[in-house]
Amino acid sequence: MMASIQKPSLLTGIRASGEIHLGNYLGAMKPAIARQDDYNCHLFIADLHGLTTSPPAEELRRNVRGIASAWLAAGLNPEKTIMWRQSDVAEVLVLSYVLSCVTSMGLLERAHSYKDAKSKDQVVKSGLFFYPVLMAADILLYDADFVPVGKDQAQHLEMTRDIATFFNETYGECLKLPREIIEKELALIPGTDGRKMSKSYGNGINIFDDEKQLKKQIMSIVTDSKGLADPKDPETCTIYQIYKLIVEPEKSNEMADRLKAGHYGYGDAKKLLLQSILETYDSMRQQYRYWMEHPKDLEEQLQMGAILARKKAQKMMERIKERVGL
Amino acid sequence: MMASIQKPSLLTGIRASGEIHLGNYLGAMKPAIARQDDYNCHLFIADLHGLTTSPPAEELRRNVRGIASAWLAAGLNPEKTIMWRQSDVAEVLVLSYVLSCVTSMGLLERAHSYKDAKSKDQVVKSGLFFYPVLMAADILLYDADFVPVGKDQAQHLEMTRDIATFFNETYGECLKLPREIIEKELALIPGTDGRKMSKSYGNGINIFDDEKQLKKQIMSIVTDSKGLADPKDPETCTIYQIYKLIVEPEKSNEMADRLKAGHYGYGDAKKLLLQSILETYDSMRQQYRYWMEHPKDLEEQLQMGAILARKKAQKMMERIKERVGL
Repeated sequence: MMASIQKPSLLTGIRASGEIHLGNYLGAMKPAIARQDDYNCHLFIADLHGLTTSPPAEELRRNVRGIASAWLAAGLNPEKTIMWRQSDVAEVLVLSYVLSCVTSMGLLERAHSYKDAKSKDQVVKSGLFFYPVLMAADILLYDADFVPVGKDQAQHLEMTRDIATFFNETYGECLKLPREIIEKELALIPGTDGRKMSKSYGNGINIFDDEKQLKKQIMSIVTDSKGLADPKDPETCTIYQIYKLIVEPEKSNEMADRLKAGHYGYGDAKKLLLQSILETYDSMRQQYRYWMEHPKDLEEQLQMGAILARKKAQKMMERIKERVGL
Repeated sequence: MMASIQKPSLLTGIRASGEIHLGNYLGAMKPAIARQDDYNCHLFIADLHGLTTSPPAEELRRNVRGIASAWLAAGLNPEKTIMWRQSDVAEVLVLSYVLSCVTSMGLLERAHSYKDAKSKDQVVKSGLFFYPVLMAADILLYDADFVPVGKDQAQHLEMTRDIATFFNETYGECLKLPREIIEKELALIPGTDGRKMSKSYGNGINIFDDEKQLKKQIMSIVTDSKGLADPKDPETCTIYQIYKLIVEPEKSNEMADRLKAGHYGYGDAKKLLLQSILETYDSMRQQYRYWMEHPKDLEEQLQMGAILARKKAQKMMERIKERVGL
């Protein structure tokens, strides 16, 4: 077997919260799967980050299983991508603490995530305040060259570089500064209400849901009130906008033509969209169900990943501990 | 062997910073050693807490070795007291993070240690801000019934109980609220300048130092300017105040009488104090040197302790993880 020394390493963290929708799949999972040949890929399921909202234990565990199943179903190849549960590698919290000792309060106070929570007049938990340091540890522990991020996370990667720089200035050059890969397309995937598809808006089309749920979500897509006979504008039609992301151009052009011609209702378009989703993702959906129904097999996958991740983490922590005197 | 189920557990953390002086020995170590028969004792060397000031790596490591050697020399019995290096049990940082997710920012902002650092107009590191959560984890991870603390640390134990209560309220009764044992005598031991003996004042008599250093420290004890022939007041004489903590009453009464009678100089009193310290702590000083000169043996002691501590920690973390969904 050839060692793949030349490949840069890439790290992705997935927050363990809620369902996986089409936006996640097209915006993050599909491009990540496509990168498996070009990078040494690392993917962790961020159950520790999920804890900041103190969700019910069973919900958090179910979310972790859901995410792991979805990634395996979407084509994650364990030979090419190490996937693990964040909390299975305790070293990340050791590094996080070490980094906190070189990170000023000011830096953490400037984090968007903290400012947002504070502005909502809630009691802010210190775990949330600590988010950027834990995120920095997530990345730096695995010596990642690249981290794919949404535009809204760019600040956190900036902070990761700042924190790594503080450490290097205090203890000597040791941590590699990671670079971001901005996932540009992510913002363009509309949800059922026409806004960006997002868990927080509750406007997702959850492609791994059972057919009944999926149908309900698609039927709820908001349209204008044009009658069956009226010609319709594909550019303002959310159904079409989603449809064209999934099918080949000839098929989406066909829907566009029908909409423009009139005598083609939104209900028909929705049925076609549902059918296409079921067809396109049929194999993925079956695999997802398999993993969800076989939690022991799934756990085995996660434990195999954890062993590999822990090995890398321990190697890095040896270096760090040597530097700081632990 | 009988299991000692009935004994309450007691936990002590020793910050890994600087030398060990007579005040530490008399105020914390001696009473702790005396408690070994009545409690299940746990003692950790807090190298993680030591990191908040980013000391040079070699200094931190030397301090850890110094503290471990001193405790073994002072009579720590590994059969009765588990002693380990804090960073050898990574679980403490996992629990610390879990606790941070139920701990409000407000609570941490009220900590004296944070307020003090902030008032000094320094750049405060977030590691210091986090101190009360890590301290809570230190204690709660080992299910401690009692924690001996100085008066100035009483707030932190209060916070530990608050944090444990938050956790129990969020996830159901799980963590035991520890009680403090206030070390009352600690404040009464004067340093070479007459103020309370304290690392931060640099007025310590470091009983494990070599003879030359020890002599220098004792000769530097501040006195008034009375002449040799003058009668002197033992109550205002720091030499006597320290001497009487170490020797039998008949001996200290003798020094008091001589001081009062006059024709007995401070230099003579200092020589007598030095001689008494060397005699009283002769065996301890020899043992200290042995451990400091045999770092491998010392490390073995620490690793044996770490194995026992980790076993307890892992058992507790299983319970915690089950509760929160990790």
